Amino acid sequence: MMIRIPFDELAQTIESAFLKAGLAPEFAATCARIHAETSQDGVYSHGLNRVEKFIDYVNHGWVNPSAKPTLACQLGNLEIYDGQLGPGITNALFAMDRAMEIAGDMGLGLVTLRNTTHWMRGGSYGWRAAEKGFMSICWTNTESCMPAWGAQSSGIGNNPFVMSIPREEGHVVLDMAMSQYSYGKLEITRLKGEELPYPGGFNKAGDLTSVPAEIEESRRILPTGFWKGSSFAVMLDLFAGILSQGNTTASVDKAGYGNGGACSQVFIAIDPLKISNQAFLNQALEATINQIHHSKPAESGAKIQYPGEGSLRTRKENQVLGVPVHEAVWERVKALAGR
Amino acid sequence: MMIRIPFDELAQTIESAFLKAGLAPEFAATCARIHAETSQDGVYSHGLNRVEKFIDYVNHGWVNPSAKPTLACQLGNLEIYDGQLGPGITNALFAMDRAMEIAGDMGLGLVTLRNTTHWMRGGSYGWRAAEKGFMSICWTNTESCMPAWGAQSSGIGNNPFVMSIPREEGHVVLDMAMSQYSYGKLEITRLKGEELPYPGGFNKAGDLTSVPAEIEESRRILPTGFWKGSSFAVMLDLFAGILSQGNTTASVDKAGYGNGGACSQVFIAIDPLKISNQAFLNQALEATINQIHHSKPAESGAKIQYPGEGSLRTRKENQVLGVPVHEAVWERVKALAGR
Repeated sequence: MMIRIPFDELAQTIESAFLKAGLAPEFAATCARIHAETSQDGVYSHGLNRVEKFIDYVNHGWVNPSAKPTLACQLGNLEIYDGQLGPGITNALFAMDRAMEIAGDMGLGLVTLRNTTHWMRGGSYGWRAAEKGFMSICWTNTESCMPAWGAQSSGIGNNPFVMSIPREEGHVVLDMAMSQYSYGKLEITRLKGEELPYPGGFNKAGDLTSVPAEIEESRRILPTGFWKGSSFAVMLDLFAGILSQGNTTASVDKAGYGNGGACSQVFIAIDPLKISNQAFLNQALEATINQIHHSKPAESGAKIQYPGEGSLRTRKENQVLGVPVHEAVWERVKALAGR
Repeated sequence: MMIRIPFDELAQTIESAFLKAGLAPEFAATCARIHAETSQDGVYSHGLNRVEKFIDYVNHGWVNPSAKPTLACQLGNLEIYDGQLGPGITNALFAMDRAMEIAGDMGLGLVTLRNTTHWMRGGSYGWRAAEKGFMSICWTNTESCMPAWGAQSSGIGNNPFVMSIPREEGHVVLDMAMSQYSYGKLEITRLKGEELPYPGGFNKAGDLTSVPAEIEESRRILPTGFWKGSSFAVMLDLFAGILSQGNTTASVDKAGYGNGGACSQVFIAIDPLKISNQAFLNQALEATINQIHHSKPAESGAKIQYPGEGSLRTRKENQVLGVPVHEAVWERVKALAGR
C-alpha cells in the first residue's frame, strides 16, 4: 500500500538508518537527503526503495562508508579523482561541486571519478549544478545490463546521462538512461498488471514486446532508439573509463562490487554567466520553452513539457501532500533506523 | 540507376562544381573532399546528393562562399567564434581543429560556432579528430523539423550528435541524429517500395507507423527513444545556442537561411595521451570491443558491431569498388562542374 510521509520525517529516518549502517554523520545526512529528494521528485526506484540495498552493500564491504575521493591527476581545468569505493552520492556531489568550483574560476571544469559506487539518481547532480547557477553534463558507466544492438546477451551498460541548465522559473534538466525502460519500471508495470506504453525489449522468441514479464524473462531490454542508444551507451562507457583512468563496463563486470560498484563517471560544469549574461540566457530559454509549450498537442488539451518540467511538478505536489512510499518498505527502513 | 565512380574523380568533379559556384580554391577542395568522403562512407544523403542544394544555397546568398570564422570570445580553453554564414564544412573543420589545438596544449578544448551553416555529415568532424589522435564530442542544432514528444507540430531540431575515440585498428565513432530515421531514409525506403524496420513516426490518425509515405504526409517523424530523444534534442539545442551566444532552434527558424542556416555548434576535443598512455587506451578499447564482438547474436551468425565499424567497412569496400552514386545526380553535378 502507498502512503505519504512528510519530507523531513523521510529524510531523518533514512539518516538514522545510514548512521546505524556505519556512515559518518555528515555522509549519512547528505545521502539521506538525496534519497529523500529522489523519492520526492518521483524517481521512487532510487529513493527510499534503494536504501536497504545500499546498506546491504555497505555490509558486504562493497561500499566504504567513510571514504572520500583522492586527487589522481590534475591538468588545467581537468581533474581525475579516485573514489576509493566511497558512497556514490557523496563522491558524485564532491565531483560536481569541484567541477563547479573550477568553472567558477575558469568558465569550464571537467572532473572525472574512478572507483566510485552507484550514484543513485543521476539527475541529482544536474539539479544541484542548476541550483548553483551552472550548466552541467554528467554521466556514469555501469556493469553490463543490456544487450548491444543485435545481441541477445548483455554486454553493455545502461549508462545514465544528464544535462542541466539553470532557470529561475524551473531548471531545464535531462536525466536519461540508455535503456528505453529500467528494470524497475518493468517490475512496477508488471505488478500493476499493465503493459508498457511502447515495446521495451524482446521476448524469448526474439520479437519486440510490451509485456514486462517477457522482458524480465529474456533479459533482452531494449536500448533507447534501438541501435542508437546501444552505440551511445558504448561511447559514454569508453569516455568515462578513459577520462577517469578507471574501469569500463567490461572491467566493472569483473570487479565484483555489485550494481554500479567500481564504476567511472564524468562531470562537466560551465558557468554560463562567464560567457554570457542573464538577459541572453533568459531569452534563449524562454523562446525555446515557449516554442515547446505552444506546439500543437497530439492529444487535444495535452501539455507539451520541457525537460525537467514533470519532475518539478511532482516535487511541488509531494512537498504539499507528502512523499509517496510503499508502506512495507517504509516499515523496513524504520526498523533499520531503530524507530 | 546506381553506378560506381572512383573517389578521386568524384572529389575532383565536386571541386570543379564548387569553384564554378564561387568558392575560393582552398574551400572548394576541402568541401569537395568532405562530400566525397561522406558518400564513400555510405552516408549518401549528405555526400554527392547534397552538392546541388549547397550550390543553390550559395546562389541564394544563404551561404557566404568565402567567409571564415572570427573570434568572438575567449575564456581559457573555451573559445566562441562567429561563423559569418561561411560554408558549414570549412567552419566546422576550423572549429574542431582549433579545439584540438587547444587540447594539444591544455588537455581539453571547447570551441563553439554561431551563425554557421549546414555542416553536412556530423561524423566528418568526429572521424577527423580521431584521425589526429583526439577524443571528441560535437553537435549542432538545426531548424525545427520534428515534433517534441506529445506534439504533432514541429518545434524542435533533430540536432546531430557525434562522439569519437581514436583507435589504430579503426576509430570508434558515434554519429546520431535525434530522429529515429532521417527524411532521407524515409524517401529511400519509400522509393524501394519497402517499410522501415521499426516504426519511424506517427500517421495522420496518430498511430505509430513503419510506412514512410504516411510519415512524410503527417510530418510527425519520431524522436529516437520517444520522449528521450525529444528531451535530448532540446538540451543539445539550448547548450549550442547558449555556449555560442548564437541562435537556438526557435531563432534558427526565423533566420530564413534555409536548412541549417545560422545554426550553432559545439566542438569538444580531449587529448587522451595527456591524461593517459597508449597502453591504457588500448586495453580499455580492446576489452570493450571484445565484449561487444563476443556477445551472443540475436540471429545466428550475425556480427555485433562497435560504433563506427559499419562505416569503416563501407569505406573500405567503396575504396576498392568505387563510390556508389545515382547516375542522374552524377550527371547533373558533372554539368555544374562544366564537364
